[in-house]
Amino acid sequence: MIRIAVDGMGGDNAPEPIVKGVMKALETFDNISIILFGDETKMAPYLKTHERLSVVHTPDYLDMGEKDPIGKYRKNKKISMFMALQAVKDKEADAVVSAGPTQALVVGGHFIVRRMPEMRRVAIAPIIPSFDGRGRILLDSGANVEIRPEYLLEFAVYATIVAKHVLKRENPSVALINIGTEEGKGRDLDKETYALLKDSKDINFFGNLEPKEVFMTEADILLSDGFTGNIVMKTMEGAAKGLGAVLKREIKSTLAGKIGALFMRKSLHRFKKSLDASEIGGALLMGLNGVVIKAHGSSNDYAFFNGIRQAKEMVEADVIRIVSQTLEKKADDGS
Amino acid sequence: MIRIAVDGMGGDNAPEPIVKGVMKALETFDNISIILFGDETKMAPYLKTHERLSVVHTPDYLDMGEKDPIGKYRKNKKISMFMALQAVKDKEADAVVSAGPTQALVVGGHFIVRRMPEMRRVAIAPIIPSFDGRGRILLDSGANVEIRPEYLLEFAVYATIVAKHVLKRENPSVALINIGTEEGKGRDLDKETYALLKDSKDINFFGNLEPKEVFMTEADILLSDGFTGNIVMKTMEGAAKGLGAVLKREIKSTLAGKIGALFMRKSLHRFKKSLDASEIGGALLMGLNGVVIKAHGSSNDYAFFNGIRQAKEMVEADVIRIVSQTLEKKADDGS
Repeated sequence: MIRIAVDGMGGDNAPEPIVKGVMKALETFDNISIILFGDETKMAPYLKTHERLSVVHTPDYLDMGEKDPIGKYRKNKKISMFMALQAVKDKEADAVVSAGPTQALVVGGHFIVRRMPEMRRVAIAPIIPSFDGRGRILLDSGANVEIRPEYLLEFAVYATIVAKHVLKRENPSVALINIGTEEGKGRDLDKETYALLKDSKDINFFGNLEPKEVFMTEADILLSDGFTGNIVMKTMEGAAKGLGAVLKREIKSTLAGKIGALFMRKSLHRFKKSLDASEIGGALLMGLNGVVIKAHGSSNDYAFFNGIRQAKEMVEADVIRIVSQTLEKKADDGS
Repeated sequence: MIRIAVDGMGGDNAPEPIVKGVMKALETFDNISIILFGDETKMAPYLKTHERLSVVHTPDYLDMGEKDPIGKYRKNKKISMFMALQAVKDKEADAVVSAGPTQALVVGGHFIVRRMPEMRRVAIAPIIPSFDGRGRILLDSGANVEIRPEYLLEFAVYATIVAKHVLKRENPSVALINIGTEEGKGRDLDKETYALLKDSKDINFFGNLEPKEVFMTEADILLSDGFTGNIVMKTMEGAAKGLGAVLKREIKSTLAGKIGALFMRKSLHRFKKSLDASEIGGALLMGLNGVVIKAHGSSNDYAFFNGIRQAKEMVEADVIRIVSQTLEKKADDGS
């Protein structure tokens, strides 16, 4: 039985989509049990009793705009997100899923679950949409604004193991996000990281990737520092939002456009769906001593369900143990 | 009369679209004259005689994939791009337009035209599409992979003057591209640049801009280092290309979709057009002692015509003199 701790109060629309996602996951997967942390009176309208569900009541939770998660943690350990993380620390759960504020989850992850000894930093690794619909791992998407090449290599190793064992990609490749494809492009960080990735036996290096290929590339993993990764993720989001708005405006501006849209309804729906991150799931926090999934703040029940599915698959594949062994072996090799 | 030097051989499809763009510009604007540098035999099929056109023959030009522009310049000054730049240096022309390789134009600009004494770096500043169709100045989009905050402030001042005097924006605002909107976000570079921009009297500071707003923002100028700016530009390009491909695939996958597309033909055309950079023109090279415009490598005649129009407007507005005066005054103030 895979035991998943869920923060019932995280996310823009919590607790409704969270609790509904939990119920759906329990119905779908018979090898999981869930401990749900949150305000019982607020969650009650959506809760059903289930033999594999236990609820732990706490009235305290974080606002999505929380600016001082460290201060909050110091003052109050009974916040739903922190209690869910504590359950992993105490070996009462194998994984955590929260749609709460990202930085709080990163901070709480560090303070409570702690880093794996073999990983020197923690990365935020969302799975972003791709043309082929299978998604790509983008990391670091915001945890480490400034970082060293060696740590990026560790991220690459972790992501490779996830791509192989969870996403079932054969010989997954790691691309370094850069401003040109040739070796020698970019900042010192990029050049040094290129050299490390190229020499590593633990990953399959794709080479540099210019983000004009971000949506079409064959590479499975897109790697950069947390500043650049965040910029790429948000620019994709901004472009998708902007192009969607332009398309809508142009369709609505003529009668023929509106008629066309009726015929095209299903195509446009599939178009929207293939860009919808909720189809794929949340972001993995890679580097913690446990499986921690950050579901989108705006998760609907289906998106949150997918976050739970991801957590289950990460535990089933025993990712943390494999990463730990791979990085330990690497250290022994002196590589 | 505004005298414009044109590199007739730069660009993926040169010289045809270049020469056609030149002819169109001469017909449209009666206050310009053009000196066209390039291989006369190759340009001949598209050339017409015109009283304000002179052609300077040279058989030598740069490949679009040129990897060593500095070496090329040292060996051969008779390359069409370098001759066009030399015409500005020699005061035979007021501006240069080239669709040749960007790095070569940056290098040639430095070696031949030289930097303005008041600007300590040269930025590549394309005008990128926006929801409102008016475009936004993005800089630096690739000339300075690593840079100091003071130089970014100079870029902001230059871009503000272009936005005001050429693009006719009232009180144009400068946004700092960053991973969060609050002050204190980002790398040390971003925090220090934020402080400088906030204190400057020469610009109207918008604050931090997350690139999820890159297409919808009201800010006129989007500022970052050359690595980040390049990543934003290429991610926008990649997202647009990717989303376009998905949309096409989904439309083509059903008969209803295809019928819808017929009705929607004009809407889809306008959609495509509003994302088309050739509507807006090329990139400005800001910081050189002359007006240098980099037209897109894949410019068609209309795009190249727009590059010439931009050059003309930059000269008409006397941008370089205004920038020079503003930055000199700033130095006198000790600010």
